[in-house]
Amino acid sequence: MLMVFNYFCAMHSIKFYQEAFVKYLKESATDKEPSTLYDPINYILGLGGKRLRPVLTLMATEIFHTDYKRGLNAALSIEVFHNFSLVHDDIMDDAPLRRGKQTVHEKWDINTGILSGDAMLIMAYQLFENYEAKVFQSLAKLFSKTALEVCEGQQYDVDFETRSDVTIPEYLKMIEYKTAVLVGAAMQMGAIVAEASESCQKNVYEFGRNLGIAFQLQDDYLDAFGDPATFGKQVGGDIIENKKTYLYLKALEYSNESDKRRLAELFLTQPEDPGIKIETVKKAFMVSGSADATKRAIEAYTNKAFSVLNDLNITDEKKLILKDFGEQLMNREV
Amino acid sequence: MLMVFNYFCAMHSIKFYQEAFVKYLKESATDKEPSTLYDPINYILGLGGKRLRPVLTLMATEIFHTDYKRGLNAALSIEVFHNFSLVHDDIMDDAPLRRGKQTVHEKWDINTGILSGDAMLIMAYQLFENYEAKVFQSLAKLFSKTALEVCEGQQYDVDFETRSDVTIPEYLKMIEYKTAVLVGAAMQMGAIVAEASESCQKNVYEFGRNLGIAFQLQDDYLDAFGDPATFGKQVGGDIIENKKTYLYLKALEYSNESDKRRLAELFLTQPEDPGIKIETVKKAFMVSGSADATKRAIEAYTNKAFSVLNDLNITDEKKLILKDFGEQLMNREV
Repeated sequence: MLMVFNYFCAMHSIKFYQEAFVKYLKESATDKEPSTLYDPINYILGLGGKRLRPVLTLMATEIFHTDYKRGLNAALSIEVFHNFSLVHDDIMDDAPLRRGKQTVHEKWDINTGILSGDAMLIMAYQLFENYEAKVFQSLAKLFSKTALEVCEGQQYDVDFETRSDVTIPEYLKMIEYKTAVLVGAAMQMGAIVAEASESCQKNVYEFGRNLGIAFQLQDDYLDAFGDPATFGKQVGGDIIENKKTYLYLKALEYSNESDKRRLAELFLTQPEDPGIKIETVKKAFMVSGSADATKRAIEAYTNKAFSVLNDLNITDEKKLILKDFGEQLMNREV
Repeated sequence: MLMVFNYFCAMHSIKFYQEAFVKYLKESATDKEPSTLYDPINYILGLGGKRLRPVLTLMATEIFHTDYKRGLNAALSIEVFHNFSLVHDDIMDDAPLRRGKQTVHEKWDINTGILSGDAMLIMAYQLFENYEAKVFQSLAKLFSKTALEVCEGQQYDVDFETRSDVTIPEYLKMIEYKTAVLVGAAMQMGAIVAEASESCQKNVYEFGRNLGIAFQLQDDYLDAFGDPATFGKQVGGDIIENKKTYLYLKALEYSNESDKRRLAELFLTQPEDPGIKIETVKKAFMVSGSADATKRAIEAYTNKAFSVLNDLNITDEKKLILKDFGEQLMNREV
C-alpha cells in the first residue's frame, strides 16, 4: 500500500483507485433503452479486469495536485473505449472468451457486437461533456488521435498476419499504436483534467507510452518463457498461432540463412500436438540471442519511461510513486 | 437555381452547395497509412449520392449570415458519419450493393468494414477540431447525442423484425432516430458554426427533424405506391421483406379482426413470385384507409416543419429558401 503525502495533496494506493473507479463504474451503469443495445455494454464493462488504464488517469490527476474525483469521467471514458476495442477486436479475431466469460458477439451475435461497440465509442466521447469547453476539447483531441492510432495498430496487426517481410520498426510501431498510446493517453488525460502544463502532459504521456511498449514486449517474452502457473494465458500461444512477435523477428535477424529458413518454415505449420514445435522455436529464440535481445529491449523501454520522470516538474515522492507503479506493472504485481 | 439575396449575405443554389461540398470532400481524401484502413474510407465517401445532409449544413450556415465555407468541416463530419453508419449497417443487413456498387465488406471483408467504419466515426469527431473550443464542444455534444440516437434507431429497427407487437409511436420513434435526427443535426450544425442563438438552433433542428420524418414516411408510401420508373428502389420491396412500416401498422389498426389476421399472416410468408402478395397487401393498404392515413401523416409532418419556420428569426426570403428546399425534397427533385 502506497501512502505518500506531500504539500499539495495526498496520493492514494493503486487498490484505492481501483475500488473508487469500480464504484463509479457501477454507479454509471446505464438503464437506457433499448436494452438490446445497452445490456451488452453493461455486461462487457462489468466483466472485471485490473482497470489499469483508468487507475493511471486517476493517479495522474492527483500527481498534478487535483482531487482524483475530477478524473473519474476521463478515466471512465478510457475504460469504455478500451472495452469498445475489445468487443470489436473479439469479433475480428473470432474469439469465444474474454476474461474467461463469453465475448459479446458469442453471448448475443455479431450485429449486436458491432452496434453496441459503436455506441460505446460515442459514449466515451460523451463522458468528456462533464468538463468545461477548453478541457473538453483537449481531452477529445487527444482521445481522437489515440483512438485512430489504436485502429491503425489493429489494422497493422491484421496486415502483418499475411506478410512475411515485417520489419522490427514496423512491429514496434504496431504495438505502440495498438497498446502503448492508450496507456500514455490515460495518463495525459489525468494531467489535462488537472490542467497541468503542456510539458508535464507530454512527459507523463511519454512515461506511459514507453512503459506500454515495455509491457507489450514483456508480454511477448512471457508468452514463450513465462511461468505457466502465473502468466494467465497459455504459454506458447503466440508460437502455436505463428505470431510474428519481437522474439521471432529478432531471431530471424540474428540467424544465418539456413536457420532463418528453418524458423520461417516452422512458422507456416500448425501441428496438432504443438509440443515439439514450441520447444524447437524456444530453443531458436535462445540460441539466436533473440531472447536476450528482447530482455534488453524491455529494460531499455522501461528505463526510458523512468528517465522521462526526471524531466517532470513534480516532487520526488510523486516520481517514486510513478516509478513504483511501473515496477509493479513490469513485475506483474498489479 | 435559387439565387436570393438579402441584407446580410448571398445564398447559393443547392447545386452550388453540392459542388462546393464534393470539391472539398475530394480535397480532403486521406492518403494516410495503412492504406488497408483508409482506402475503404475513400472508396465509400467517393461513391456519390446527393450529399443532402452536408448541403443542409452549408445552407444553414449561410441562412445565419455566415460564409458557407465555415460550415465545410461540420458538413464533412456529417457526411463521414452518415457513411460510417452505411458501412456498419450494410454489414448487419448483409447488403451486397450500395449506390449500385459493391459494399465495403463485399469488396474487402467484414473485418475491414468494422475497422474502417470505426475509424470514420473517430474522423467525424476530428473534423470539429477546426473550430474553436466553445463551437467544438457544441458540435461534438450535438453530434454524440445524435449519433447515439442513430445507433438506438438501428437497434429498434433490428428488434422490430422479430416483434409482432410494434406500436405506431414506437415505429415513429424508430424512424425519427434512425433517419430524421441526423437531418435536424446537419442543419443545427450550420447554425452552431454561424453562432446563431439557441432558439434559432432549436428551430432549425426541428425543421430538419420533422422534414426527415415526413421524408421517411413518404419513402414507406412510395415503396408500395411509387412509380417504378422514378422511385429508384424496387417497388414492393418492403412488402416482400415483411417490413412493418407505417402503412402496415396503420392497416392493422384500421382493419377488423379477420382482415387484421389475414394481413399479419401474409406478412409471415415469402412467396417465390411475390406479385400476388404485393397486390393483395397494397389493396389492404388502400381499403383499410392506411394509404390515405399515411399521406395525411406525411403532410402533417411536412407542415409541422414549415410552421417551425414562422418562429425563426430570419428574413422571409430565407424562409422561402428553406421551404423551397423542403418542397423539392418532398417532390423528390433533389
